[in-house]
Amino acid sequence: MFDPRTIAVVGASRAKGKLGQAVTALLKSNGYSGTIIPVNPSGGEIEGLPAVRSLEEINGPIDVVVLATPVSVALDALETCTRLDVKVVVGVTSGFSEAGGDGNENEIRLRRVMQDAPFRLVGPNCEGVVRPASNLQLTFSPMFNDLRSGPVAMISQSGALGGLMALRLGERGVGINAIVSSGNETDLTAADLLDYLGNNPQTRVVLCYVEELRNGRRFAEAAQRLTQAGKHVVAVKGGRSRAGSRAVQSHTGAMAGDDRVISAVFRETGIIRARESVAAIDAVTALAAGRRPAGNRVGIISVTGGLGVEMTDLAESAGFEVPVLDETTQTALSRYVPFYGSVTNPVDLTGVVLANPTFVGRCLEAVAADPGVDIAIAIITFVPDQQFIEALAEAYDGTDKPVLIVWTGSARSNASGEALRERAVPVYDSPARAASGLAALAATTGEVI
Amino acid sequence: MFDPRTIAVVGASRAKGKLGQAVTALLKSNGYSGTIIPVNPSGGEIEGLPAVRSLEEINGPIDVVVLATPVSVALDALETCTRLDVKVVVGVTSGFSEAGGDGNENEIRLRRVMQDAPFRLVGPNCEGVVRPASNLQLTFSPMFNDLRSGPVAMISQSGALGGLMALRLGERGVGINAIVSSGNETDLTAADLLDYLGNNPQTRVVLCYVEELRNGRRFAEAAQRLTQAGKHVVAVKGGRSRAGSRAVQSHTGAMAGDDRVISAVFRETGIIRARESVAAIDAVTALAAGRRPAGNRVGIISVTGGLGVEMTDLAESAGFEVPVLDETTQTALSRYVPFYGSVTNPVDLTGVVLANPTFVGRCLEAVAADPGVDIAIAIITFVPDQQFIEALAEAYDGTDKPVLIVWTGSARSNASGEALRERAVPVYDSPARAASGLAALAATTGEVI
Repeated sequence: MFDPRTIAVVGASRAKGKLGQAVTALLKSNGYSGTIIPVNPSGGEIEGLPAVRSLEEINGPIDVVVLATPVSVALDALETCTRLDVKVVVGVTSGFSEAGGDGNENEIRLRRVMQDAPFRLVGPNCEGVVRPASNLQLTFSPMFNDLRSGPVAMISQSGALGGLMALRLGERGVGINAIVSSGNETDLTAADLLDYLGNNPQTRVVLCYVEELRNGRRFAEAAQRLTQAGKHVVAVKGGRSRAGSRAVQSHTGAMAGDDRVISAVFRETGIIRARESVAAIDAVTALAAGRRPAGNRVGIISVTGGLGVEMTDLAESAGFEVPVLDETTQTALSRYVPFYGSVTNPVDLTGVVLANPTFVGRCLEAVAADPGVDIAIAIITFVPDQQFIEALAEAYDGTDKPVLIVWTGSARSNASGEALRERAVPVYDSPARAASGLAALAATTGEVI
Repeated sequence: MFDPRTIAVVGASRAKGKLGQAVTALLKSNGYSGTIIPVNPSGGEIEGLPAVRSLEEINGPIDVVVLATPVSVALDALETCTRLDVKVVVGVTSGFSEAGGDGNENEIRLRRVMQDAPFRLVGPNCEGVVRPASNLQLTFSPMFNDLRSGPVAMISQSGALGGLMALRLGERGVGINAIVSSGNETDLTAADLLDYLGNNPQTRVVLCYVEELRNGRRFAEAAQRLTQAGKHVVAVKGGRSRAGSRAVQSHTGAMAGDDRVISAVFRETGIIRARESVAAIDAVTALAAGRRPAGNRVGIISVTGGLGVEMTDLAESAGFEVPVLDETTQTALSRYVPFYGSVTNPVDLTGVVLANPTFVGRCLEAVAADPGVDIAIAIITFVPDQQFIEALAEAYDGTDKPVLIVWTGSARSNASGEALRERAVPVYDSPARAASGLAALAATTGEVI
C-alpha cells in the first residue's frame, strides 16, 4: 500500500473542485515517481497524463485503485476491481453508512462486494493515504502537503482531524512515516492499520484518532505488542461524552462504545490517551524525539522568571519534581546568570543572557548534566538571532536526556528554527503545551502517572 | 498615569541595548504625542530629542519619570524626584529584593525614599505601562507594539508573561485598554491597580498574573466590587505548587502564600482562576466580547465531523449540554447540509458548504436562532475566501448570543480575519482552546461551574 508502482484514479477529471481532479493533481505535484493512470469515460489527457476510459483497459497489475467518483459509479468500479489484479482500493467516496437513508443500501452493496474481494479496502468516506518518504500523496486535501519523513505513523477515522494533526506536526518539524485516513473502516480497521504501521521498523509512535473501535480486542492486542516492543501508541477517542457519542454515529455511522471500558483497555495496554487532538500532538512531539527519561525530576531554565514559575507549577501539578540543582551545576550557571537571576531551579537566566547567544546553550548543557535532573526544559521568548537557536541545538546534541523547548515566539520566528526541526527537538509555544509533552514522557517511566 | 503630558526618561541613551534607549525609542516610534524628555548626564540629543543632564533641569511638573538606569543611579534619581513636582515614577530598573544580597540593601533604601514620597511608584523590576489608545508605550519591550484598544486591562507581576499574554490577545484582535507590569510592587500593588483599572468605564475584563497578593484582602474587595458591577476578573496565580512557590521567591522576592486560601478567596469574590497564561487568554477572549449566555446549552456547526465530535466531547465534559436542535432549525439547516452530513447537533455541514461562502453564515444564523441554544460555536478549517469570513461576521451581528469560532487554519489565513477581529469575535485555533473560553462564559451564568 505504501510503495505502489501503479495507481489508477477512478474519477480523474479536468474539472476543478472534483475529488478525482484534486487526487490526480496532488499525486503529480508532490512528485510521486510511479505510474498514475487517470480513469475517465471520456479518455483523453488529464493533468498531462494519458487517461483510460475504464479500469479494464489497464494491462497488468494495479497496486492501488482510488475511488473518487459519486457513490454509484464507485460501487460499479469496485465490482470491476474484483475481476482485475488489484492489491488495494482507497475509497475517497462518501455516501455509505455514515449518510443514512440510501447510504445504508450502498453500504450493503459495498459489503457484499468486499465479501469475496481479492483486495483490501481503505475507507470509504476517507481522505486517503499519505507517505512523505515516497512522495505519495493519495488524497484530495492539500493539508498533507510538505510533510517531513520520520518516526510517526497516523491513523485517523476523521480526515479533517487527521489533516489538522498532520499540519501541526509539520509545523513542529515532527517527521511522519505514514498517514492513513481510515474513514468508515468497512474492511481495513484501525486495528489492522495499527498492526501494519506499528510494525514498520521506522515507526516509533502511532497516533490514532478513533471514533469506534470495531475490533477492540485486536486493537488492544496490537497496541500491547507495540508498547512491549518499546514503541508508543497515543490515541484520542472521539465520542467520549453522551452527546459526542450521538455525534459519532452521524459522522461515521459508528458506535462510540462504553467509554469506561475503553479507558480501562487503554490503560492496560499502555496506550497513552489524550483528551483532545492538540494535546495528542503535544504528546507525540515529545515521544517522537525518542529519548526516555530515567525518572521524574525536571530542570528548568528560562529567560524570564514568570514563565519559569508557570512551567514549575504545571510540572509539579503533573507529578514531576523540580528539585534544587546540584552545587556544581549552580556554580557553572552562575558564570552566566546575573546576581538578580536565580540558579536554583527553575533557573531564571534573565533577559541579560540574550545578549550572548552561546550563554543559553551553556546553561542548558549545565542543567542537563546535573545528576539530579532527568528531563531538561529551556524556555525562550523571542530569538534575537540564528546563533541562539544553534546554541540550543548544540546543547541538545550534548545530552542523551529528553529536552523540551518552550519557545513562545516560535510562530513569529519560525524561519530560524530549522536547527531544532532538523534534530526533531520537541518545541512548544507555551508551558502548558510542554506540560502535555511532559505527561507523555511520564507514561514511558514507572515513576509518574 | 495613563494620559501623561510629560515623560522624563532617566537613563535615556544613544547606546542600543540599553533599557533607556529602548524606552525612548519605543515611546517615539509608537507615536506618543506628549513631551518626551531624555535625561542623560552628557546631554545633547537622543532619538532626535533634546536631552537634559539631570531631572532638576526640567521646569514645571513631570507626569511620569521612568527609571531605566543601573540600580544606584536609579535610587539617586528617585531621591531627586521627592524634591520635584512628579506624579508617578515607573521603575524599570532591577536589582532590589528579587536579587537578594546587595539587592536587599537597595530595597531598604528604596522603601525609605518611598515612605514620604509625594508620588506613586510602579515596579521596580517591571516592564512598564502601555496604553494603546494614547499610543503610550512606556516600556523597553517590543512585545507590546501594535495593540488594538479595547475592553481588557492587564496587570502582570511578570513582565515577560505580560508580554506573552498581550501578544496572544493582539493576535486574536482582543482590544486592550491598559497594561501595567507591576514588578516588585513596592508601592502600587495589584490591589491598587485592580481598583484603578477596573473602575475605568472602558474596562470590561481585568486579566491579572500575580505571584504574591501583598494586599490580599484589598485585592479580593476590589475584585468583588468589579464582579458585582458586571465586570470580570481573570487571574493566573503563579507559585501554586511547592517548587513554584520557591521559584516565586527568587523571581520577585515575594511569598506565594497558601494556595488553598487563595483559591477560596477567588471563588468567593467571583474571580475566574485560570490554570495558566494561555487558558487565561482563552477566557479573556470569550469575556471581552461582552455577550453573556442565558444558560449552558451549546449549538455546534462544523465543516468537518471529527472536530464537531471533539468540540461536543469537550463541551459536555465542561458541564455544557449539546441538545438536539429544534425541528425548525433542522429544516432550515437541511437546505444547506448534504444528506451525508447531519443537522441534529453537532451539525456536520461537510466540506461541501465551503463551495458557497454564504451557506456557513446561514447555518450559524439558524443555530444561533434556535430557542434551545444559549451559545453557538462554528468550526472551520481553511478559508477559501474573504466572503466566507464576512458571512460568519454577518451571522455574528445577527444574534445577541455568545458565538465562538474555532478556526483551525487561522494562523495561516490570518490576513483575511479582519472582519472577525473588528467585531472582537472570539476566535480559537482548536476546540480545546474554545472549551477554555466556554468555561469562562459558564462562570458568568448560574448554570454551570
